[in-house]
Amino acid sequence: MNKPFDSLPTADGLWTGLRDTAGIATAIVVAQGAIRWIGERAALPAEFASLPPHDGCGALVTPGLVDCHTHLVYGGQRANEFAMRLAGATYEEVAKAGGGIVSSVRATREASEDELFDSASARLQSLLAEGVCAIEIKSGYGLSLEHERKQLRVARRLGEAHGVTVRTTFLGAHALPPEYAGRSSDYIDRVCNEMLPALAREGLVDAVDVFCERIAFSLEETERVFKAAKALNIPVKLHAEQLSDMGGAALAARYGALSCDHIEHLSQEGIAAMREAGTVAVLLPGAYYTLRDTKLPPIEALRAAGVPMAVSTDHNPGTSPALSLLLMANMACTLFRLTVPEAVDGITRHAARALGLQDIHGELAVGRPANFVLWNLRDAAELAYWFGQRPVRAVVRQGRIAEGSL
Amino acid sequence: MNKPFDSLPTADGLWTGLRDTAGIATAIVVAQGAIRWIGERAALPAEFASLPPHDGCGALVTPGLVDCHTHLVYGGQRANEFAMRLAGATYEEVAKAGGGIVSSVRATREASEDELFDSASARLQSLLAEGVCAIEIKSGYGLSLEHERKQLRVARRLGEAHGVTVRTTFLGAHALPPEYAGRSSDYIDRVCNEMLPALAREGLVDAVDVFCERIAFSLEETERVFKAAKALNIPVKLHAEQLSDMGGAALAARYGALSCDHIEHLSQEGIAAMREAGTVAVLLPGAYYTLRDTKLPPIEALRAAGVPMAVSTDHNPGTSPALSLLLMANMACTLFRLTVPEAVDGITRHAARALGLQDIHGELAVGRPANFVLWNLRDAAELAYWFGQRPVRAVVRQGRIAEGSL
Ligand SMILES: [Zn+2]
Ligand SMILES: [Zn+2]
Repeated sequence: MNKPFDSLPTADGLWTGLRDTAGIATAIVVAQGAIRWIGERAALPAEFASLPPHDGCGALVTPGLVDCHTHLVYGGQRANEFAMRLAGATYEEVAKAGGGIVSSVRATREASEDELFDSASARLQSLLAEGVCAIEIKSGYGLSLEHERKQLRVARRLGEAHGVTVRTTFLGAHALPPEYAGRSSDYIDRVCNEMLPALAREGLVDAVDVFCERIAFSLEETERVFKAAKALNIPVKLHAEQLSDMGGAALAARYGALSCDHIEHLSQEGIAAMREAGTVAVLLPGAYYTLRDTKLPPIEALRAAGVPMAVSTDHNPGTSPALSLLLMANMACTLFRLTVPEAVDGITRHAARALGLQDIHGELAVGRPANFVLWNLRDAAELAYWFGQRPVRAVVRQGRIAEGSL
Repeated sequence: MNKPFDSLPTADGLWTGLRDTAGIATAIVVAQGAIRWIGERAALPAEFASLPPHDGCGALVTPGLVDCHTHLVYGGQRANEFAMRLAGATYEEVAKAGGGIVSSVRATREASEDELFDSASARLQSLLAEGVCAIEIKSGYGLSLEHERKQLRVARRLGEAHGVTVRTTFLGAHALPPEYAGRSSDYIDRVCNEMLPALAREGLVDAVDVFCERIAFSLEETERVFKAAKALNIPVKLHAEQLSDMGGAALAARYGALSCDHIEHLSQEGIAAMREAGTVAVLLPGAYYTLRDTKLPPIEALRAAGVPMAVSTDHNPGTSPALSLLLMANMACTLFRLTVPEAVDGITRHAARALGLQDIHGELAVGRPANFVLWNLRDAAELAYWFGQRPVRAVVRQGRIAEGSL
C-alpha cells in the first residue's frame, strides 16, 4: 500500500455477507466513514437496502485490531546481535560489537526523521496488512529531548500517512542514557522537568510510561515521573514486574494507570490494586517467547479478579521483533493458556481500553469510525488456532478499504 | 495467485541488483526456466549483458525454500478442539465433541477430492507466498486404500496447479483406523500388501513414512513397512523418537532413510547410525511449541556428529497448524538454539536432501530449475530474527515470477 491513504476507496455503503464471531449473519452500514447501522442481516431497515453494496462473501468480521504496546520507531535493527548470540558470543563480545539497547539508542540518535519514518513504515505495513487499526508507539530510544521528540514526531506522521490511529507514549524513562551513567536521579529530573513538559506542550504525548525494574528505574523514580505526568493531566502506564516484583503495579494503579504491562511477577496485591483502579493487564507473549522466559504471568488470578487482559506485540528490536498481532494471540493461548475469546478481546476491546480508546476502537458499534476486518475464516477460533497464517480478506480502516480488494 | 501457473510471466533474462547471503552483489541468468549462469555481478560474461533485465533493487536472494515435512491435505480443521482445550475441556469432552486425530480421519474420508484440493490449496498459498518452491505432503488421514489414494492424488494436483515441486509420502501407518481397533498387525499387513503396492503402481508414492511410537506403531511393525518399501525400491523416512526413545532412528538408518523427523528423544546410538547412513534430522519446532514440549532435540550432539539438520512446519491440524516456514526458522533459533546459518540451511539445502531433491532444490547453481526468492531484507540474519514478518519481494518458482511484481 504505497498509495496515499486519502486516495483509497471509501467503505461507505451496505456491507453484507458477513458473519460475526458468534456465527450470526451480519450487515454493516457505513456512512461518511462511520458505522451508521449494524445488526442481523434479516433486521436491516429498508432505508439502507439500496445503498452501494459490498459483498463480504461469507467472511468472518471482527473489529479492527489494536496493538497497544509497541516500540515501533527506532534506528537500525539487531539481527546481527541475534545471530551472534546464537553462535555463542558472550555478552561482552555482543557489547563490543555494538549490541544491546545502547546500539538502538545510538542508531536512533543518528537516524534522520525520514529514515526513522521509512523503516518504521515498513514494519507498520506488516501490522496493518493484518488488520491493525490502532497502535501505540512509544519513544525511549532517543533519551534526550531532541531525539525523543524525533521519535514521537515520526509516530504522529505514521498515523497521518497510513490513516491508522496512533497513540504516542513518552517513555523517556526507558533506560539510562550513557551520558548520565551513575546519575539516574539527574536523568529523571531531566525527564520530569524538561523533556516531558516540552513534548507535552508540542502535543506529542498521549501517555507517559516508565520501565520500572532493577535494571532500569526504581519505584521512587517511577513515582516522580508519574507525578510530573499527573501535573500535566496525562495518563500513565508502566512496564511493571517483568523480571521481579517491584510493587510497580500497585503504584501505577494508585495513579489510575491505563495499563500495567509484562507483569510476569505481579503479586496478588498488585492484582487487587489494578482491579480497583480499572487498570488493564497487558500481556506480551512475544517477549516471553524470545527471552525463553519460564515465569508465566498470573493469568488465573487476573481472570478470577476480573482484570481485563490485553495482548500486544511489544514490537522492539531487542526482545520482541514480532510483526504479527495474530501470532501474539496464538502465543497468548499456547504459552499463557488464554482462552480464544480472551485472546480475541485481548487484541481488540481490552487493547483499546489499555490506550483509553475504548469509545472509538475495539468494538463494532453505531457512531464509531468504521474500523473492521474481514477474514477468510469460518470460525472465530481460527484467529488464534493457525499460526503464521495470512487470513485477511479485507480491512476497513478509518472508513476506507485499506487492504484487500472487493 | 488465482491465475493458472502457466500464465505467469517468465523469469527468463538477466537478474541484477541482488545480494547473496554473504552480501556479495550477484547476478543470475535464467534461460528456458533454468539457471544458466550465476556469480558475482562484476564477473558477468558480456554475452548475457543484453538479455531482458530484471532489477532486484538490492534485494537479498536465497534459494527457494523447501518445506520437507507436512500433512497439508486433510478434511476439516480443529480450531474448535483448540478452543475447547483452552476453555478447560477434558480429554473425554474433546473426544465426545468429535476431537482428536479421529476427527481428521473422519473429515478426510467424508471430503471429496475437490474439497480437499480447495482447502489444502488455500493453506499452500500461505507457504508459497513466503517463497516455498518444494514441499513434501504426506497421506495418513485416509487410512484406507481409497482415502489414502485421494489424499495423494490431491497432493499431486497441488503440485501441477501451483507449479511447485511436491514430493508425496505414503503415511498409511500414521494411526490405527477405528475399524482395525485391537488389530494393529492386520492393519500393517493391509498397508504393506495392499495399500502401498497399489499406490506405488499408480505413481503416487515418492517415499514411505511410519509413525513409530508407543501410541502408534511398534518397531517391528515399522520394519515390516520398511521392508515392503524396500521391495518396491521406494525410499523411507520416519516419525521417530518424538515421545520416547523407541530405537526408530537406528532402524530407519539401517534402511538408508532419507530422514528421521521430530527426534526429541534421539539417543547417541541413533545419531551415530544416522550419520553413518547420511540420514537428515528433521526438526519440527512448531509441534514442540504447540505441545509445550520441554524435551529439546539433541542439537549439540547432532551438530558435533555432522548430521544435517532440516527445519519444517510439520503442518497438521492437531499439533502444528503452522503456515509459515520463516516462523519455523525463528523458532528453530529461539527454541532449539540453531544458529542463523543452520536455520537457513535447514529450510533450504538440508530440507532438499531430506526429500532426495538435493540435486534440484535448496541451492543456487547452474543447470537447476530457477527457484529463488528476493527478500526485502538487508541481512540474511533477518530471515530468522523477525517473526510474523512478510519480507518477500518476489518469488521465482520453476522459472516463472510467481509472487511479487518487478
Ligand atoms: Zn515494552
Ligand atoms: Zn508429522
